[in-house]
Amino acid sequence: MAKKKPATPGRPAPGPSARDAATQKKLVSLAEAVTRSALAGREPRVEIPTRSRSNTLWNKKQRILEMGSSTQERQLFNLGQAKQFMQTMLHASTIKDLIDAGKTSSLRGVFYKAKHTVAGTKENTFDTQDESDPILEDLEVTLGALREELHIFADNRGQVVGNITFVDKGDEIDARRMGSGGWGIPSIVEPDTIQFKKCDADFVLHVEKGTVWNRFNEDRFWETGNCIITHGGGQPPRGCRRLLQRFNQELKLPVICLLDCDPWGHYIYSVIKQGSISLAFESSRLAIPEAKFLGIRAKDYAACDLPEAVKIDLSDNDIKRAREIAAYPWFEHHKGWQREIDGMLGNGFKMEVESLITKDISYVTETYVPERLAAEDWLD
Amino acid sequence: MAKKKPATPGRPAPGPSARDAATQKKLVSLAEAVTRSALAGREPRVEIPTRSRSNTLWNKKQRILEMGSSTQERQLFNLGQAKQFMQTMLHASTIKDLIDAGKTSSLRGVFYKAKHTVAGTKENTFDTQDESDPILEDLEVTLGALREELHIFADNRGQVVGNITFVDKGDEIDARRMGSGGWGIPSIVEPDTIQFKKCDADFVLHVEKGTVWNRFNEDRFWETGNCIITHGGGQPPRGCRRLLQRFNQELKLPVICLLDCDPWGHYIYSVIKQGSISLAFESSRLAIPEAKFLGIRAKDYAACDLPEAVKIDLSDNDIKRAREIAAYPWFEHHKGWQREIDGMLGNGFKMEVESLITKDISYVTETYVPERLAAEDWLD
Repeated sequence: MAKKKPATPGRPAPGPSARDAATQKKLVSLAEAVTRSALAGREPRVEIPTRSRSNTLWNKKQRILEMGSSTQERQLFNLGQAKQFMQTMLHASTIKDLIDAGKTSSLRGVFYKAKHTVAGTKENTFDTQDESDPILEDLEVTLGALREELHIFADNRGQVVGNITFVDKGDEIDARRMGSGGWGIPSIVEPDTIQFKKCDADFVLHVEKGTVWNRFNEDRFWETGNCIITHGGGQPPRGCRRLLQRFNQELKLPVICLLDCDPWGHYIYSVIKQGSISLAFESSRLAIPEAKFLGIRAKDYAACDLPEAVKIDLSDNDIKRAREIAAYPWFEHHKGWQREIDGMLGNGFKMEVESLITKDISYVTETYVPERLAAEDWLD
Repeated sequence: MAKKKPATPGRPAPGPSARDAATQKKLVSLAEAVTRSALAGREPRVEIPTRSRSNTLWNKKQRILEMGSSTQERQLFNLGQAKQFMQTMLHASTIKDLIDAGKTSSLRGVFYKAKHTVAGTKENTFDTQDESDPILEDLEVTLGALREELHIFADNRGQVVGNITFVDKGDEIDARRMGSGGWGIPSIVEPDTIQFKKCDADFVLHVEKGTVWNRFNEDRFWETGNCIITHGGGQPPRGCRRLLQRFNQELKLPVICLLDCDPWGHYIYSVIKQGSISLAFESSRLAIPEAKFLGIRAKDYAACDLPEAVKIDLSDNDIKRAREIAAYPWFEHHKGWQREIDGMLGNGFKMEVESLITKDISYVTETYVPERLAAEDWLD
């Protein structure tokens, strides 16, 4: 049943890309520094940039969150650090194997690959994945390489349709002809894997959830609105954010977000726009400072003459989160956002994109979004 | 920015399908029965099949879970039932509107559509979606129509690649040329929306998670193994299950499952194969009694010479769940499954598909699955 067939003719063998060669060079340098110390009779140690809130800075000029310059040492001859030192080297070795083989793996796969009992002891290299994931983040920041460049993928989430053709490992994917399904956004969308071929879209509309995306796809909004439509299944994963950034930087397309009028929607926008603390070291490759927030807006209850049914009371936690978000450095001095969050708090309720169905099934695609786009009525 | 363009030439206008006409007829009959009673001075009432464990039967011959014949009345002139009666009628009306418009909506969308304050009172038709979803399930069983036939979709989850071409509303989707992304499996995959065009695959391999699916897609297993590869992001949603059943029934393709060796993996298999209690009324359109379980098997720890690292201790809850599953009527007298579950309990640990990476990055695609397929070594 599963006979081997020859590889597809004309499909290029997966050779090392320039990106892979650069990552390998960094990995080898890391290993060489350790062996050089050891051979010279010095203690092997690695310097690792600190991933913490206190080492996260707001770059006002570039308008992104960045990692500061603090680092910490990881020493082999330190009882409290020896295990992590060994774990760092183990994962670096697995990553080298992955790149050599031209293959990728998941965070869980890399954990399994490195997990074993150290010979002659009862000590495990790793006990749980919770120990493993932060070591991979350490390697990202130490090597200055994205997780995607380390050949590690996250779970797939999010879909795309619209006026664009992708080329992915030789396959041409016409996002105009995806029916009701859409193309699943891969976890790794770097330019050596995924190229943009033919794009006639004027902008990208990013919506929060798959159910809203279905409404836009069913109404073929990407055709009438001449755009690309994406969703990230809630807080968009890295693959989705990186693809949005590439649309913005390489194709110069505005990225316009349609999210819920609640602290969660505002936070999603904040992450898309400026980055997050936990991934601050990747903001320059993920954040989109020019991203716009089209709605739902606090004013919409009155402006769109919405019925009572759309109101969902703000919880105490919502109010707390809203105040935290309003104090973010990029929102703190932004009059529009201060008004927006005050407006929501003044309303006392949140509103979801899906609640626009109370006006009409396709009110969101036929009236709300086209009118706001025409008036350029958004927050940025 | 969002100029209206003429509809794509050659794309058929979404007219009512035979399926839609049949559903509309059922909705109108329901409404007419109510008005007939009212006009004749009799109390309007609806008879609704009972969706409960006690009304779920195991059909030994067809090997699926089925809903029994118990029903319950919903009366307008009964203080405890009047609200639900009204809610049932409201949702039936929304569904008629959706079908008339040739559009679909989400569970949440339908909830919003019906939610309002009853004129002249302070009573809401619905307060939360928790009240709304069961009413839609009532309508499904009362009308004998799938949720998909009521034009209601769930969130999209799951992806597909492989040796098949789909036609979805006029778009041709070649699942052989999806790159690393795959086609997102839509929530509604009924034959009037999605047709199978060209399929050369010998079977379907269904894997549990997107991360495992990535491994198979990256290694182009659908090409070497000549198959279709799907995943459902854990417990597969209805759209994914329905698509698998259509592959099996219409294209006569065996559906072979690669799931974790744990109670959750066994339960996923059980649902794919025989259906679930909560959706027993849909088993005949979702269940695949011939589905096979390829692995991971309890014997694999020894058979594949796996390292200690793959072991994850069974929790007390795992042991309890395993015993419950072993007592399911379709497993109870199945020697293979009794041995399998006993084997796992005897091992004292579970194993995940991803742990096969401890042998080699592509052990699962190059050795494990091909060998098991060649030997037809599976449970069914």
